[in-house]
Amino acid sequence: MARYAIGLDLGGTNLRAAAIDASGQILHKVAGRTDLSAGADMVIGDMVDAIDATRRHLGETNLAGIGVGVPGFIIMEKGIITDSPNLPGFENYPVRDALEERLGCRVHLENDANAAALGEKWMGAGREVEDLVLLTLGTGIGGGVICGGRVVHGFVGMGGELGHITVNPTGNPCGCGNRGCLEKHASATAITAMAKLMGFGDGVTAEAVYRMAVEGNDKAVEIYRVMGESLGIALANLSNIFNFPLYLLSGGVLAAWDFFAPPMFEECRRRSFVFRNTATRIEKASLGNQAGLFGAASLGFP
Amino acid sequence: MARYAIGLDLGGTNLRAAAIDASGQILHKVAGRTDLSAGADMVIGDMVDAIDATRRHLGETNLAGIGVGVPGFIIMEKGIITDSPNLPGFENYPVRDALEERLGCRVHLENDANAAALGEKWMGAGREVEDLVLLTLGTGIGGGVICGGRVVHGFVGMGGELGHITVNPTGNPCGCGNRGCLEKHASATAITAMAKLMGFGDGVTAEAVYRMAVEGNDKAVEIYRVMGESLGIALANLSNIFNFPLYLLSGGVLAAWDFFAPPMFEECRRRSFVFRNTATRIEKASLGNQAGLFGAASLGFP
Repeated sequence: MARYAIGLDLGGTNLRAAAIDASGQILHKVAGRTDLSAGADMVIGDMVDAIDATRRHLGETNLAGIGVGVPGFIIMEKGIITDSPNLPGFENYPVRDALEERLGCRVHLENDANAAALGEKWMGAGREVEDLVLLTLGTGIGGGVICGGRVVHGFVGMGGELGHITVNPTGNPCGCGNRGCLEKHASATAITAMAKLMGFGDGVTAEAVYRMAVEGNDKAVEIYRVMGESLGIALANLSNIFNFPLYLLSGGVLAAWDFFAPPMFEECRRRSFVFRNTATRIEKASLGNQAGLFGAASLGFP
Repeated sequence: MARYAIGLDLGGTNLRAAAIDASGQILHKVAGRTDLSAGADMVIGDMVDAIDATRRHLGETNLAGIGVGVPGFIIMEKGIITDSPNLPGFENYPVRDALEERLGCRVHLENDANAAALGEKWMGAGREVEDLVLLTLGTGIGGGVICGGRVVHGFVGMGGELGHITVNPTGNPCGCGNRGCLEKHASATAITAMAKLMGFGDGVTAEAVYRMAVEGNDKAVEIYRVMGESLGIALANLSNIFNFPLYLLSGGVLAAWDFFAPPMFEECRRRSFVFRNTATRIEKASLGNQAGLFGAASLGFP
């Protein structure tokens, strides 16, 4: 049997694990829920169970290693989550040591957006490059920067906070203390907030705004234009800073690509001579919500 | 004798070369002018002469290698300058091949701002880190990003265009096609343009604005406040993107540090939770106009 790695992707809702071989084939998969109400120790127990079940199923002989992706800030050296709005109860939790102790082997810990970027680089839309940036458009906007095939962690693991690039210095306020953060103008949450401002009512969802845009509603189309322009400003900055060949976008909002992408490209082209004068690509990520699982597994291969 | 490398820094005005040993000591130095009116071939000849004189003076036995820093965009693989406003006549000139042919040995070519960042990392204010960003504040604003000890070139050598980070999407127009580029709000040129808007007259220099600020002129102080806030927005973005430990500023404008630095730090602190929550440093570079010379020489050591 081929060598394989186990990747585990812990989200605020779902806990998924998979055994993946070096060619990217999924050999075994475990899908469960993240039961945060039971507390961090129990969630760690569920993670150990998912990994252990996979390991027993395929045997330890060919297991290359184990990688785990989690939301929040990780002190890489210590394997501790310092802060994670999506994982209440995990603040300052020594996730890596707890997993290693109970599994009896080494575990590679990574932030979920960084793991997704690694996954796209390993087996997704970024397979052919060594340098890429991934923006995950969801409730907020996460990011991962891969330079020379490796994640740019920064000195305490807080690199890649791309959702907090300022796209408008007097824009919407953000919980981070800034104004005009990208994620306050281009996330799914930003779309529903703009819909509220456009008189669509309090309960409108991003999906409903998308359906209205498809039906030709001018206000809905305008919302995606603002989203696209905001992304264009951020991507122009990233292009001028990195001159990387590839910028990937992922998340459910991608369904509205035909509405936000044209103003995004136009804005980026106008604002970045680096983008305009090179064959820089901005594309959809290809692994969907499996990117983090693949990225976590990729960490298990030496 | 200790091993040494030769660094050459070609500017629009000055041509300087130095032999530097591995401890950073300058063993020999050549200072000349860049005679652009004579044409690119003649300038290349002057570069060869400066390097050759140094090499003959110290002997080839201990020469580790040769590095050259030039302004403009360089296609790294080919060693060609594609575009350089400061070096008219050098467009598409095969600088590296021309130097190698006439010197009979290998030459490492690098963009001048990247070379300055390498110099600060090697022997300047960045000696103790592996990751840093340098912003050179002059007529425009250049930048160099060092990640894991190496320059982030991007895929066609256009990485590090930090002067074109958007700090205000409806700000001053820039020749690059963008609006609100950092260098249109925080360079020496931006200071004199703001001074003109404040009624200081057409001919006012950045030095004169500085002297007025020292004398307590409110308008001059306000100009530095705008400059500082603009730098703060860009540095907040860079901090959120990289989480590097060190951001260095260089250039003659640093004389006005006491005027622009306080609003710069305040803006950066407010806008970047990564900066605020970590021991990130923003400091003056330490090598002055010798940074590029040191960086070029550092390329000569294997």
